Amino acid sequence: MQFSSGLLESAVNEFAKLPGIGKKTALRLVLHLLRQEPGTVSRFSETIDRMRKEICFCKRCFNVADGDFCAVCANSHRQQHTICVVETIRDVIAIESTQQYNGTYHVLGGVISPLDGVGPDQLNIGSLLHRVEHERTEELIFALNPTIQGDTTIYYIQKKLQDRPVRITTIARGIAFGGELEYADELTLGRSLQNRLPVEKYMSR
Amino acid sequence: MQFSSGLLESAVNEFAKLPGIGKKTALRLVLHLLRQEPGTVSRFSETIDRMRKEICFCKRCFNVADGDFCAVCANSHRQQHTICVVETIRDVIAIESTQQYNGTYHVLGGVISPLDGVGPDQLNIGSLLHRVEHERTEELIFALNPTIQGDTTIYYIQKKLQDRPVRITTIARGIAFGGELEYADELTLGRSLQNRLPVEKYMSR
Repeated sequence: MQFSSGLLESAVNEFAKLPGIGKKTALRLVLHLLRQEPGTVSRFSETIDRMRKEICFCKRCFNVADGDFCAVCANSHRQQHTICVVETIRDVIAIESTQQYNGTYHVLGGVISPLDGVGPDQLNIGSLLHRVEHERTEELIFALNPTIQGDTTIYYIQKKLQDRPVRITTIARGIAFGGELEYADELTLGRSLQNRLPVEKYMSR
Repeated sequence: MQFSSGLLESAVNEFAKLPGIGKKTALRLVLHLLRQEPGTVSRFSETIDRMRKEICFCKRCFNVADGDFCAVCANSHRQQHTICVVETIRDVIAIESTQQYNGTYHVLGGVISPLDGVGPDQLNIGSLLHRVEHERTEELIFALNPTIQGDTTIYYIQKKLQDRPVRITTIARGIAFGGELEYADELTLGRSLQNRLPVEKYMSR
């Protein structure tokens, strides 16, 4: 692409560095910003800059936070003895958006994946074990993605906690609502048969 | 979506204001920036802000410019007596990227569209007529989108210039390279038959 302004070109190049944004999309976004008031664009850029500079990670659960602790950990109405273990911050947002969970979280920062060079020490596992030991945790709910790496991670943590009086569960796997039975993979369909629910329990949800 | 950080939420909301960017994409972009160094993010936001504050529009052709005149108008190697009339800055970038044009541009800022309340006075038409009158323009090449509004605009400007010794042309319409003949619309196919070229001329391109 040939630009007749260096300022425009730099802005397009910056946008094009973002994941999933190509040069043409970047140009569309920049031309959109060019049509906005300078104040609007300043607010955009200041908000992004401030987010990166001021955002913290919760000292307890590694979720994003505006201060030392995230809004979930700082909320005394949340059930403090239940920990939902997730891979990323995005998973926290997804679960929070269901408004079905009232405990705390622990963001691992990934899952154990030897092929990618990710071992337990690269993840927030030590701090999780420490929490279970010192916070009188009653239940640990794993909400990891259903991959071999996710299962390995569950297995590893469960082993480390086998002498602790903590209930360890994982979120249900099964046919998604709106999913077509005939297109479900065999593993999911098989597991969802094994883990079948009494209809009363299903209907009450 | 439920965020546990106000800083994160504001940043996602700012990105989600951009065209074609939904909340989920905005979150993905923000989490990407969160993984970058603060300096990288500062450079991103400063570049965008500076672009909006410092970018100018060329006093002659209304293309984007870093100063009073755009890089095309300021380039003395460009053929100054040929003007390519386009709707938007994006069209200038598209034509410049072909590297097949060596004249100047004139960005109208749209096309005449009475239904949308856009008349000749809302567009950079007066300045174009002024240029043709004072710059000894030899050729005016219309590169507008092939719409009724585009054709109306060509007709309007052509009428205004009918007493001037300026050659008025439009870019060729026809079957696109890589286009399938059988899927071409009748108007395009009909026009491309009417405006057929000697093979030697076609091959020499």
